[in-house]
Formats: sequence, C-alpha cells, structure tokens
Amino acid sequence: MSTVVSNDLQAKCINVIRGLAMDAVEHAKSGHPGMPMGCAPMAFALWTRHLRHNPKNPNWFNRDRFILSAGHGSMLLYALLHLTGYDVSLDDIKAFRQLHSKTPGHPENFATPGVEMATGPLGQGLATSVGMAIAEEHLRAVYGENACSHFTYVIASDGDLMEGVAQEACSLAGHLGLSRLIVLYDDNNITIDGNTSLAFTENTVAKFEAMGWHVQKIDGMDVDAVDKALTAAKQVKDRPSLICAKTVIGFGSPNKSNSPKSHGSPLGAEELALAKAALGIPGEPFWIPEDAQEEFRRAIARGSDWEAKWLAAAPQHFLELLQGQPDTSWISDFPIATEPSATRASNGVALQLAAESSHLIGGSADLTHNVMTEIKGSGTFSSDDPTGRNINFGVREHAMAAAANGLTLHGLTRGFGGTFFIFSDYCRPSLRLAALMECPTIFCFSHDSIGLGEDGPTHQPIEHLAACRAIPNFNLFRPADAHETAVAWAVAMQSKKTPTTIVTSRQAVPVVSPPASPTHPAFNGGYVLIDSPSPKACLVATGSEVGLAVEAARLLESEGIATRVVSLPSWFLFEQQDQSYRDSILPKNIPTLSIEAGSTSGWTKYAQVHIGIDHFGASAPASDIFRAFGFTPENVAKQAKALLK
Amino acid sequence: MSTVVSNDLQAKCINVIRGLAMDAVEHAKSGHPGMPMGCAPMAFALWTRHLRHNPKNPNWFNRDRFILSAGHGSMLLYALLHLTGYDVSLDDIKAFRQLHSKTPGHPENFATPGVEMATGPLGQGLATSVGMAIAEEHLRAVYGENACSHFTYVIASDGDLMEGVAQEACSLAGHLGLSRLIVLYDDNNITIDGNTSLAFTENTVAKFEAMGWHVQKIDGMDVDAVDKALTAAKQVKDRPSLICAKTVIGFGSPNKSNSPKSHGSPLGAEELALAKAALGIPGEPFWIPEDAQEEFRRAIARGSDWEAKWLAAAPQHFLELLQGQPDTSWISDFPIATEPSATRASNGVALQLAAESSHLIGGSADLTHNVMTEIKGSGTFSSDDPTGRNINFGVREHAMAAAANGLTLHGLTRGFGGTFFIFSDYCRPSLRLAALMECPTIFCFSHDSIGLGEDGPTHQPIEHLAACRAIPNFNLFRPADAHETAVAWAVAMQSKKTPTTIVTSRQAVPVVSPPASPTHPAFNGGYVLIDSPSPKACLVATGSEVGLAVEAARLLESEGIATRVVSLPSWFLFEQQDQSYRDSILPKNIPTLSIEAGSTSGWTKYAQVHIGIDHFGASAPASDIFRAFGFTPENVAKQAKALLK
Repeated sequence: MSTVVSNDLQAKCINVIRGLAMDAVEHAKSGHPGMPMGCAPMAFALWTRHLRHNPKNPNWFNRDRFILSAGHGSMLLYALLHLTGYDVSLDDIKAFRQLHSKTPGHPENFATPGVEMATGPLGQGLATSVGMAIAEEHLRAVYGENACSHFTYVIASDGDLMEGVAQEACSLAGHLGLSRLIVLYDDNNITIDGNTSLAFTENTVAKFEAMGWHVQKIDGMDVDAVDKALTAAKQVKDRPSLICAKTVIGFGSPNKSNSPKSHGSPLGAEELALAKAALGIPGEPFWIPEDAQEEFRRAIARGSDWEAKWLAAAPQHFLELLQGQPDTSWISDFPIATEPSATRASNGVALQLAAESSHLIGGSADLTHNVMTEIKGSGTFSSDDPTGRNINFGVREHAMAAAANGLTLHGLTRGFGGTFFIFSDYCRPSLRLAALMECPTIFCFSHDSIGLGEDGPTHQPIEHLAACRAIPNFNLFRPADAHETAVAWAVAMQSKKTPTTIVTSRQAVPVVSPPASPTHPAFNGGYVLIDSPSPKACLVATGSEVGLAVEAARLLESEGIATRVVSLPSWFLFEQQDQSYRDSILPKNIPTLSIEAGSTSGWTKYAQVHIGIDHFGASAPASDIFRAFGFTPENVAKQAKALLK
Repeated sequence: MSTVVSNDLQAKCINVIRGLAMDAVEHAKSGHPGMPMGCAPMAFALWTRHLRHNPKNPNWFNRDRFILSAGHGSMLLYALLHLTGYDVSLDDIKAFRQLHSKTPGHPENFATPGVEMATGPLGQGLATSVGMAIAEEHLRAVYGENACSHFTYVIASDGDLMEGVAQEACSLAGHLGLSRLIVLYDDNNITIDGNTSLAFTENTVAKFEAMGWHVQKIDGMDVDAVDKALTAAKQVKDRPSLICAKTVIGFGSPNKSNSPKSHGSPLGAEELALAKAALGIPGEPFWIPEDAQEEFRRAIARGSDWEAKWLAAAPQHFLELLQGQPDTSWISDFPIATEPSATRASNGVALQLAAESSHLIGGSADLTHNVMTEIKGSGTFSSDDPTGRNINFGVREHAMAAAANGLTLHGLTRGFGGTFFIFSDYCRPSLRLAALMECPTIFCFSHDSIGLGEDGPTHQPIEHLAACRAIPNFNLFRPADAHETAVAWAVAMQSKKTPTTIVTSRQAVPVVSPPASPTHPAFNGGYVLIDSPSPKACLVATGSEVGLAVEAARLLESEGIATRVVSLPSWFLFEQQDQSYRDSILPKNIPTLSIEAGSTSGWTKYAQVHIGIDHFGASAPASDIFRAFGFTPENVAKQAKALLK
C-alpha cells in the first residue's frame, strides 16, 4: 500500500500534525507538545503508508491496532484521528483537556472513537498490546487469514521501556514469537528529569535481541527510513519487532527542542511563534491546508475498501460469532456440590464450563494448577501452535494482567489471568486500567486469606479485599462455596463494561448456598442465607467465613438467639440493588457483625462490629491461625452476643 | 579467606543443609525442599568461603548482606543460620512453619536473627538488594573503606528474574555500576508449571550484559566453580555481577529431582528415604554430624574477628553516627507560611531540612521537580560520584520503592522515593513489604487527587488513599497545608518501625494550621482546627479539602450554624490515640460530614455522610472538576445542613 506523496506535501502533512499539537496544548494551557512534534514523521509514515484502519468504522474487527503507549503524546493521536476522518472534529481538538470533551489529557478508549485503550501510565500500552497481538495470532490460527489478519503497532517511549510491566511483556512477546507486533521506540534521549543518560543507559538493541526480538535502529525523523523499517518488520515471520527510532523531542522549537522543556508544558506564545516560523507553519492556529487534509482523508476510502474486502472474504460463521452474545446457560450444568471443597477448585470447574461456550483465553503467572486456570481440552498457546487457549505467562503477573486486558479489548476473545490474591498487588495498575477502560477482563485470584496457612504473611492477603473494592467499576466477587463460584463466573462472562475479580480459597469450604442456577441469589451480590422469623442478630460474611458464620449461627440458635446469616460475595453487585432490597437484607435495626478474614476497612458501612484482621498474618497451619485470630464459631457467637447487650 | 576443607567434609556439610531442609519440610508437612537441595553447594561456597558476617552479632554494621530473593527456599537460610551459630536453634528448625516460630514459611527479618529482609514475593529481594548496594557504595565513598566496605550477595530464581521489579532494578544497578552487588542465579530450569522453556526463553547472559552487568555461566553444583566465580565477581570494579549457576532442583531425590514435584511440597516419607540413601545421608532426622557442625561454626570465630578488626579501624565519628537518634528539631525552623502553596512544594522544603540532620538518600522516578524530592546541595549518586544523595531511579517506580527499602534496611541511611500518587499502584508490593518488614522508608507521593487537573483519570488517584490506609503498619499522611507537611516529615523521620507515605497536592492550598512546631496538633493524626462553643455540625477532611471545609464552615457560621472543622491527616496516628482523645475530636453526638477528594471507602468509621468520589476522575482544569464533583463550599454547606435535618 505504498503511497507516493510529494516531499513537499509530506512535509506539510507532518507539520500539520505538529501545528495541531502545539496549538491544542497552547489553547488548553497544558499538555505535552514535544512528543507529537518529534514523532509526527514516524506517525505519518505509519498512518499513511501502513496502518489498515477504517476511520468511519473504528470498530472494524480486522483493523490494525495502534497503541500510543506514550499516552502523554495524546495530541499526536487526536490529530491523526481528526485528520484521517474519525468522529473527532476540530472543535473537539480545540476542547483538548476540557471537561467532557472527546480529547482528554491522555487517550481514553471510552471517550474517543479510534482510541483502542487508555494510556498514560507508562508501560501499560506496550504490555496490553502484547495481549492484542496474542489475540490476533490465535484468531488467525483458528479462523484463518480471511477472518483475522492484522498488525499491532505501538509507539513507545523510553519511559515505557523502563517500566517493569513492559519488560515482562516484551520478554513474553519474544518468547511467544509474536511477529505481528511492531513497536516504534521514540528514542528522543529526553526524560522529564533531563537526558536519558541520567538513568537509562542499557543497550536497548542488544537487550531486545536477547529477548528474541527483531531490532532495527533508524533515523525516526526520516519518513522513508521509517517506511522501510516498517516494511522490513512486517516481513519478519518469527519474532516481534522493535524499531529504535532516533527522534528530536519538540522538533522545530528553537529553544525547547531536544530538551525536557518541550515535554510537559505549552511552548508559550513566543516560542510557539518561533517554532512555527522555523517549521514554516503559518501563524494561524489549528492550521490545516486543504491538500494536507485531502492527503490524510484518503484513509476513508482506503479504509472502507479494506473493510468491504474483508467482509466479502471473511467466513460467514466468523462474522456471526462477532455478533454473538454471552451464553451463560452452562450455569445450570454446574455440578451440585455436597462435600466441602476449595473454591479455587470450583473456579476450575466453572472456568471449564464457561470456556466451552466462549472465546476465553488466558492462563496464570506460573500457578496454573494452584489457581486452577487451565482450559482442559485446549492446548498451550505458542508460536508452534497458536490455537491453544492456555497461556503460560511466566512469573510475570503485571504483564499477565495487562495482556489479559489486551485479549479482552481485541474483541471476541475474553482474556483472563490468574495468580495468588496477594500478587494482585503486582497487577494493580492493570486492574485499575481494566476498570477505567470498561474492559471486562476476568481475574482469578486464589489463596485469598490467612487460610493459605504456612506460606505466611508475605503470602497472606489482608488489605487486598478492601483495596480492590475501592477501585471504581471493579467487581470483586468472593464466593462462599462452589455454587457461588459458578455464579461469579456467570457474572464475569455476562459483564460488558466491568472487570470481575474472582477471589477463591486455597482450603476446602462447606457448601452453604443453593445449587448454581440463573436465579441463584448471589447474582444480587448479597442475600439472606439463613434466617429466623425475627432475628435478633445478623452475621454478614464473605467467602470462607460464610461457613463460619453458619456454624456460629447454629451456636447462637442453640442458645435461643434467632440469627440471620447474610452472604455478601460482591459489594459491587449489592450496591447496584435498590435501597429497599439492600435494607431487606441488612436492616438497620438488627445488630450486625461482619466476619471476614481481612481488613475491616469499609465494613462499617454494613455492620457495627467486625471480626477481621487489621494486622499482618502468620506462618502456621491455617486452622492455628484462624483460631489465633478469633475466627472460630465460639468467638463469633461471643462477639455477636456482646453486640446484643 | 579461602578455607581448605576436605572434599569429604565439604560434601557432608552440603548434605547436612539438604538433610535439614528435607526434614524440616517433611516435619512441617509443607514447604519447599527442592531449592535448598539444589542450592546447597553454592550456598556452602558463599557462606564458608566468602560471606563476611558475625553470627553472634547479626547487626554488625559492616557485614556482607545476604538476600535470599527466592524466599520460598527459606530452609536453606535457616539451615545456614543454625549451622553457623546464629540464635536459631535446632528446636527452631523443628518448629518450621509453626505459629510464633523463628522459622516462618518465608524469611522475615523481624522474626529471625540474621534475616536481612522478608522475601517470598518474587523480585523483591533482588530489587531491595540494589538499594543495599547503593547504601554501601555511598557510605564507603563518604566515610571511607574502614567505615563501610562490604558486598551484597543475592540468590535469585528464574521467577525473580522474570518479575518486572527485578528487571527495573537490574537495569538500574547496571546503570549505576554497583560492583559490590553479586547475584547468584539459581538456574534450575524448573518453574512451578514445568520447565522454564514454557515461558522463559530469553538469553539471560546477553540480556544482563546489555544492561551493563558482568556475567558468568557456571556449574552451580560444583563448589569450586562457584568459589572461583565469586572470586572473579569480587574483582570486577565497575559493574554488578550475575553468576548464572546451573543447578538441579531437588538434587538427590531419585524421582523428584529436576522436576516441579520437589518445588513446593514435602518429598514424602518414601522419597525422603530414597533421597537420603542416594545422597549418603543417614536416616535419622535433622542429622548434623560433629565435624560438619564444627566446620560451619568456624564462622563464629571468623565473624568476631572481622567485627573486632572493623571496630578498631572504623573512624570514631562514624561509629558514633551509628548510635545516633533521629533529630527533628529542625521542625522549629520550618518557615511560617502565610500564602497558599502546594503541599508538594512544602514537601521539598521539609525534605531539605530533614536531610540536613540525617542520612536521607533517595529520589524520584523521573519526576524530581514535580514531586520536589531533590536534596539541594548534594550531588547525584552515580558511579563517578557515589557521595551524591540524589538518586535518579528512572521511570522505574517499583524498583525505586524496593531500593528505598534496601537503603533504609541497610542502616544509617534512610531511603525515600517519590512519584505521583497514582503510581503508588506500581510500587504497591514494595510499600506493603516495607510495612511488613517494619522498615521506615519514606514515600513522597504528589499530585494526590483530581486536583492535578488536565492529565485526567489515568493520573487521578481515587481509591489510593483507601487502598494505602488499609495496609497494616502503614502511615499515610495527607497534610492540609505547609505546616502539616513539616509535621509529616518529622513523623516520618522519627518513625522506627513504620513506613510513612506523604501525600501532597499539585495545586496550592491555603494555610489553615498553626506554624510547624514539635507540639503541632497534627502529630496526633487528627485534631480540631476550628471550633465553636457547642458545634451543631462537624466537618472532617484531609489534605486539600481541609481548606474547603474551613470555607464551608464560614458559610455555615454565617447562617448561624456553629461548626467544627477537624483535620485528619493521618488515620494511622489518630487510631493510636486513646479512645477519649478520639472521642473528644470526633464526638459521636455531633452530625459529621467527611470531605475528601477520593473514595469514601472507610469514612463510615468517622462520619455519617460523605463528600467523596466513588467513580473515576476527569480531564479538565482542576477547578472545573472540583465544581463538577461537588467540592465547593456551597455544596459542602448544603450537605452539612441536610445532615442536620
């Protein structure tokens, strides 16, 4: 798809991007002009000579994915979206960084057509793109080239490359030989604190080669060099590509280029004028000459053509799959449990059923048989056999979570990842990003409390339930038994805009709730499990402590104290119920005791007294720790009685 | 210090370590025998031929640091501690993984003499050791070889090397040329899920060379090869060393060696017997023959000798420094503020004063002038000049936090790190570890709310206050103004067992509290800022919202509603006050409204109604967002009045 543009027009087009970036930042009085000014040539080369996309249908399934991992350079992306014909108007550009605009400070997929994901927290874009590239390889292998066949392009900064999450992801991408992943490294020598030599002196070329990447080093200001490098990268069939492109941050600005001064602030009126003069851009703000506009807008015809050809060639059943809705009817097939079992084991059973009627793909960070995340009957995803749906992420929790987001964002495939709940801390920036991006990734976190026993405090989550529940749009589901675990999976699979985290026990827990079914009350997030005609006390618990609450309730009943037990696996879902439902479950007038083997933080909302853990755990057999920390039926009953006085 | 041991005795000593590890795990019915069985030879070589330590004084300042980054191999360390004469008895070994024992499942510095730090969460040990190595370089440069001159040794696993935090730290260590850092990589080819080829196929040698490391590849089962490699590594003067040592996990076990089966479970009685037979270990459990015991215990005389020599040679003023107590008298010199200013700016002022009378050393993750973490008058720490106390961590938040812990754990030096509060998520596993390790690192997190404005939701903390407060033994301090910021720093510097996180604003906030002094009420964590004789309503707030509460109180007073304003910068400190103090500040009988630009999670403890943010932020000028989200004096007053009805 090489396009011949005169050098004059090409230079003009590149300057249009620069001008829009400078002007929008100046207009907003905040932003990052330097990156777009330096990256405009490579972005131009990529967007006009390589990127297959359809501005009139940003959701065209087979588009190339473009990820601006260096999200602070958002104006580069907004300029390209506007110029190539997406639903991003010049007025939107003028509203850069204003409330409710389509052009927020950092790219947000839910706010702007054509933005694939939210970026800004460094490393996330690059790591998430690895998931997108896996999705593409997988779907291509399963459904054929006509169904899915595209590249995933990333522009990344030195900051991206320094981040651990990106290093994990790049190591994984090299291992998996993701040849359709092409990363342009904006090697501009400048970080916020000064020259990259202050902190980043590794040999990037050698390092990426050691990780199994194809690496090129080019002049990133030279459109033809970028073009050539991209062409070469696309021809590599066995490994991902890194193109180290030397650029000049703030190119054109006489006094601020090649300096952190052009990184994160407007140039200022005076320097802006000087930069425009130096570049040959007219003084008028938001300059878009007609010929440049026309050149960029050729993307519309090309894009519509590409999509039409794809639609004509793609297998019909694949196109139908893309229209599919989640099917969770399998919940009725979930085996009725009678014996105690670990909810992590139930996680494996539910995942299995969910995988049969969906495109679940994912795995664990080297804990597959501990967290129970294997899709049986499917192979392991590898460069030899990309049809496998089980991914060995290695001990790379953060990259796993980010890549799982990429798998989900790609569409059709639904990404999941698993590790011990304690290591949700390692994943946290990607968990938050899933919630922010309205990306319904599924996270399976087992070994959810002191119940894991001997591994001790470094492995025992305490504050993690509270910390996860505090993330907006994040559904943490801590099932009490096998049946609630099935509900958690059904909720996760039905979710379209909310990630679901399923937190499971290492140890066996008794069956307390009704058989799994589409009408199981856990779908409400919280419900009355055991009740008395007029309860004098209420015990509310989650996960493994629900069984404990049931035992304590029996003790209390035996002493004539009518007791209600409430299971509250998902605060997120419970809060979505109407006030009258919530009041019917947890009435204000019944003294309530919460029981959860974790921080009491947040529980004051639902209970007056708490049995929880506001200190670190201990290394010992689980039963010893539970006893030492007050998690016995006797102590629960005692605390409940104290509450009644 | 080469020690000639007969090959027989050497082999016996190594088998003693293996035997203890196998037996302790078997006895505990849980644990990780395979790693100690494979690493025993290299640990023997290191501990008997190289490591300078004093078993009778685990806190000897100039000891070599030994970090078992692969913390699951804890029995390796416990065996060495017991055998070389630390206060870890055979009974302690027999109590492996039992409640309140000195031998928890993973090493814990606060539980066991001779354990430098808590390890288990992979990557943390290696990353923290980088901080220790920086501390050593720095102190040696400042106080001379006689004061401080030691090596930092690490045993790391493939899991450690896969973790992003370790990759960040290794990149940083290479950049800084930390030549006294020597890492033994236990390259056993096995991960929990199977062979490392499943997920980890990068060229480790080439990768570390690209990061500026000296790399050797050896047979890790050969004591002399390890010895030689360690000798070579110690002679390298300009870069850290990685020794890739091929080992056999579970060495000696006929059916479980070289397999994940020996990783995380007891061998079982039958296999244990077979392994002992294969190794030539007698059947008796916890076998320690006298000659082996004697060989190991030579560490005691050597250690006492080393310490004595050091004591004789070390400069007197340095030894006195080691006895010093924190001096926070500088708080009285903190300038009295009158004009509004950003608390991040006050952070810079306080840090400056604190640094003058302490060994503060640290920096930021490429945001030095945004977070205000520069120690003025001190240079930048580098291989050229290690006397500098300002560290450029690069865009490596996680390694920064871990290394800051290492700087603090080393002793004398006090580590600090800084970034935007949103990126505390990237640091989280190390924040938690600081709290668990009782390590009083200081974290400076600025840009603490939607008040950062245009950068938008990817950069605006929402749940982070709640998530940090939920960590046990973690003091989050969100100062309301310049004076409270000085208090936060004094609290941080005085802390001996608790990390302090100082969370500051990007935007200017008014001065609301009394001048900084040793008796400033913020030392109590919460206090009454404004009061009326008999207040009808109470507004409780933190940070930038305290000024807002003050404005709202004025409105309410103007309408005749007597209002109290409480500033609550540190819940951690407030909870440490007695009940009567807390009740005097936040009496149950005054209707209370909380105001904080973050998640309301947890606030139900202190207030009945909340103005907070339980959704993501927005990209816009800060004042627009505050208004849109209800953070105006008028809305606060309105909500307070509603509460009175």
